[in-house]
Amino acid sequence: MSVPFDIETVDLSEEELRAQEATYGALADSVRALNEASLRTTVPADEVAQIRDELEAITQRLRKSQIPGPHGVVMTRTGEQRTYGNAVVGLRNPIAVPLEIETDPEGRAWSRFDLNALYEGPPALVHGGVTALILDQVLGQAAAAGQAPGMTGTLTLRYRRPTPLGTCSAEAWIHERQGVKTIVHGCIRDAEDNTTVEAEGIFILPRWAREMLAAHEATPDRFE
Amino acid sequence: MSVPFDIETVDLSEEELRAQEATYGALADSVRALNEASLRTTVPADEVAQIRDELEAITQRLRKSQIPGPHGVVMTRTGEQRTYGNAVVGLRNPIAVPLEIETDPEGRAWSRFDLNALYEGPPALVHGGVTALILDQVLGQAAAAGQAPGMTGTLTLRYRRPTPLGTCSAEAWIHERQGVKTIVHGCIRDAEDNTTVEAEGIFILPRWAREMLAAHEATPDRFE
Repeated sequence: MSVPFDIETVDLSEEELRAQEATYGALADSVRALNEASLRTTVPADEVAQIRDELEAITQRLRKSQIPGPHGVVMTRTGEQRTYGNAVVGLRNPIAVPLEIETDPEGRAWSRFDLNALYEGPPALVHGGVTALILDQVLGQAAAAGQAPGMTGTLTLRYRRPTPLGTCSAEAWIHERQGVKTIVHGCIRDAEDNTTVEAEGIFILPRWAREMLAAHEATPDRFE
Repeated sequence: MSVPFDIETVDLSEEELRAQEATYGALADSVRALNEASLRTTVPADEVAQIRDELEAITQRLRKSQIPGPHGVVMTRTGEQRTYGNAVVGLRNPIAVPLEIETDPEGRAWSRFDLNALYEGPPALVHGGVTALILDQVLGQAAAAGQAPGMTGTLTLRYRRPTPLGTCSAEAWIHERQGVKTIVHGCIRDAEDNTTVEAEGIFILPRWAREMLAAHEATPDRFE
């Protein structure tokens, strides 16, 4: 079996896990607010210089103790996966919106979220690539929720109208299952519920992932 | 003429403009480093709480003076466009990598860049949606460089192999011109120069943009 990465277990009780997520989730929220404020600020150069010194000192303090690389996927004691660093949904990733995605086992996923000035492309509009980024994640989670997890094989986006910054929603559903391939459809909607972007994704479960899932099913207590 | 946004002129000399870009570009760089450090930190909860207080105080200082909304597109005295807030290339956007994209007038655009843990999807790999985000921007700039600017109409991404985090490059070129439509091809390559993602984009110049360009050509000193 050739799996290109390890899934580590976070060996914490439910309570410890929740406390840890509250601590670092709140840190990410504070940094998200700073990101947006720094983008739009017009404070004078001497104040910017002072603030940069303070931020660089804080960065050094944060680096005193850190994980050696990216977060990857970790498994909790109860067998739930966590993707703390994910660029779209990562609780700990300050550049992630982050999306809270709901799913149902039929293979459906949806989310409502706000996109501020950090996600701009054309003036006052969401960057077309940001809607692609979000749809890739939501379509993938719809496939996974419907027991058809996979990596993106092909993603096609049709831009029907501009997406204004502000409140948006995304939805995706399994359209068709073809063996190891799953075809998922989805869309982005604006605050008035107009569909602005339509997406079709083909998700494919690579051989290593099929082998890992089979091994996991054969020894269900593997991550416990 | 119905243009959905205004293009403001930054009324600064070349020297003042460069000084302003140095100030706020450096601020964005400091915040980018903080983003990555905050993602991977494991400092204890009391230190995180202290750091959050300091970050929230800095956010308030940054908000004392700010532009009223997103940056949009601004025009310099010499007629160059600046997209300071763009989610991929924005000098002032701390969640932008940012990409420095080179172009040639044949309709070609390319860039080399590093993607750190903030851009993760699957473990140790670039998020598939992040490659889509980058390709949307690079393909659009290839079209614009070849005098065929437009908004994304359709974007199709083919994921050939995983893209490891680290050094990557992107390239795009005009494949075909069809009146107001321009078909652009492009790809992402990994550090070993393997093509990992292929893209095709159809860019369309909306009516309001054609009218704005025509008006600009008729009165070339409009932004001067």
